[in-house]
Amino acid sequence: MAFSFEILATDGPARAGVFHTPHGSIPTPVFAPVGTAATVKAVPPRDLHDIGATLVLANTYHLHLRPGDELVRDMGGLHRFMAWPGPMLTDSGGFQVFSLTEINRIDDDGVTFRSHIDGSQLRFTPEVSMQIQQNLGADIIMCFDECPTPTDRAVVERAVQRTHQWAARCRQAHPDDSQQALFGIVQGGIFPDLREQSASFLQTLDFPGYAIGGLAVGETKSQMYATLDYTMPTLPADKPRYLMGVGEPDDLAQAIRRGVDIFDCVMPTRLARHGSALTPDGRINMRNRAYAREDAPLDPECDCYCCRTFSRAYLRHLVHSKELLGHHLLSLHNIRFLNRHVQRMREAILEGRLTTYIDTFLGRYLHPA
Amino acid sequence: MAFSFEILATDGPARAGVFHTPHGSIPTPVFAPVGTAATVKAVPPRDLHDIGATLVLANTYHLHLRPGDELVRDMGGLHRFMAWPGPMLTDSGGFQVFSLTEINRIDDDGVTFRSHIDGSQLRFTPEVSMQIQQNLGADIIMCFDECPTPTDRAVVERAVQRTHQWAARCRQAHPDDSQQALFGIVQGGIFPDLREQSASFLQTLDFPGYAIGGLAVGETKSQMYATLDYTMPTLPADKPRYLMGVGEPDDLAQAIRRGVDIFDCVMPTRLARHGSALTPDGRINMRNRAYAREDAPLDPECDCYCCRTFSRAYLRHLVHSKELLGHHLLSLHNIRFLNRHVQRMREAILEGRLTTYIDTFLGRYLHPA
Repeated sequence: MAFSFEILATDGPARAGVFHTPHGSIPTPVFAPVGTAATVKAVPPRDLHDIGATLVLANTYHLHLRPGDELVRDMGGLHRFMAWPGPMLTDSGGFQVFSLTEINRIDDDGVTFRSHIDGSQLRFTPEVSMQIQQNLGADIIMCFDECPTPTDRAVVERAVQRTHQWAARCRQAHPDDSQQALFGIVQGGIFPDLREQSASFLQTLDFPGYAIGGLAVGETKSQMYATLDYTMPTLPADKPRYLMGVGEPDDLAQAIRRGVDIFDCVMPTRLARHGSALTPDGRINMRNRAYAREDAPLDPECDCYCCRTFSRAYLRHLVHSKELLGHHLLSLHNIRFLNRHVQRMREAILEGRLTTYIDTFLGRYLHPA
Repeated sequence: MAFSFEILATDGPARAGVFHTPHGSIPTPVFAPVGTAATVKAVPPRDLHDIGATLVLANTYHLHLRPGDELVRDMGGLHRFMAWPGPMLTDSGGFQVFSLTEINRIDDDGVTFRSHIDGSQLRFTPEVSMQIQQNLGADIIMCFDECPTPTDRAVVERAVQRTHQWAARCRQAHPDDSQQALFGIVQGGIFPDLREQSASFLQTLDFPGYAIGGLAVGETKSQMYATLDYTMPTLPADKPRYLMGVGEPDDLAQAIRRGVDIFDCVMPTRLARHGSALTPDGRINMRNRAYAREDAPLDPECDCYCCRTFSRAYLRHLVHSKELLGHHLLSLHNIRFLNRHVQRMREAILEGRLTTYIDTFLGRYLHPA
């Protein structure tokens, strides 16, 4: 069997494991950098490997628009097209349709919307999303879901029903997980009974993994953590759990502590393009004049090329001068920072000391001296 | 002695040699990529090494403005600041002052102008240029010169006189070449007698190398080659000769054939940012729809990471989607292309077959099948 999930150790609800895929094994917990348009912005794939990325995400919506999923299929699929030989995941396109486009109509069959690139009218259904994701050929693919504002009960209730019908249609369009593993997405907003209902229904479709959708979309951090608190126990213990769109260092810690295995977020690369960097003492903006003559590395504890090679003064100069090399170097570092953070939590789980690691990390990250 | 120039072989007027500097030896002929603001745009220094760069240029004018040459000096000099351990060259700032700024006054003492960044009023003199270049700490530094339109005889005559006075003042401000080698710049536009007069005068100042200035500024290619024809014999045979701002593959060939040793140009990286690439069959624009489904590498004969790893279809997608990775990969390739072209000419000189190489190269590059 191409896909299998092994749990090597637990520490409270937290798990350290390995998810095996046709393109390699992913140690979990894992953070996946996002390559929206089949490229992690400003980072060549050989560098992704060096900074410890094992799973890379790409966006179904963007690739359908440009260059087109059929073109990617004809060029040998996503792995070959972007020269990333390791495991990949594509989202369903649902989140982008709901957040980036002008929607013309949502009905029980699907969504009609306008392309954010050229305004052309397009329609996504569960079957279309499956077809696109099959063309792209990622290892992990996602059910097409509706992702509404998580706090309006009537809206969330209807979205959950639709998400379930769509999940069943995705399952039907993709019944065989041997080449691509189809994950279900639990919706339900901030309502415990809806989350539980969603988790139970999806399990009847027997997915090889489950995502927690509809979070990191504007709710408070304590709402997010509370939702995880009551949703995680409703998911099967022997399948990987994926929290979509989450990547803040403190959120990663709080979610891993509650049993999440997989994460993705554009944050490290987006932050880099805004000149910001992650450090053990919190987030800093390299544009700050205070760094203009600082000879020390960005993060003296980091082993990435950026931190081993350049001074804060040089990085500040690159950011201040809007040099492309600044995007590249800060992206490398920010991804490395998150990967090491997650790797250290994995080691801590294996050694039964996750709480200590997290308390120490958060004490410093959230309240730097 | 830190600097020395060895000529290993000649083939007609062409020379293959080695220029030794305190930061390493430069096989000549050599093409230097340009790191205007202490970064070759979108290319980390570790990649520069991989694509065969040995000499890197940086711009005095830009670095004086941002981050400031005193800051660079305090951070250990350019080599350390930008993490390029190999040989470096800075220009005098003259060309940028004359081409990028609003000039308030040129007099015999120097030039008063406005910064293109914040409009502040600044003044460059030969002494100021020497001080800035000493602060930056490149291996090869250049005399401050006046670079006028090369075709108006009266204007060129006055510029030559001023350039000579300024060269003498640069020599006085930098009498010792043991740490940094100061090159003189021959001016004279398209007038053979002025070029000869300029070359003779500069030799009285005994520079360790000579540049041909005032070319590649709008004259025709045949005017450029004719100027080289009568200028090269007026330069001392045992010193390196540097043709500033030239990097087109055909111009490199025509100049090396005439005895030039050193070149620099922003072309390969600027071209990359516009989505264009150099190939043995001429320049191509990767935005072209014709490449959308082409599975072949950009240049199947190239050994760079871009050509070894990605298809034209993928590069076309990156350029079309304005992805930063496109700038990076095309910059890598374009620099590699020029470096290999120059390296092959060097090998051809060593083996006495330069004319054959150049005829074959130009036949294909200028008239692709």
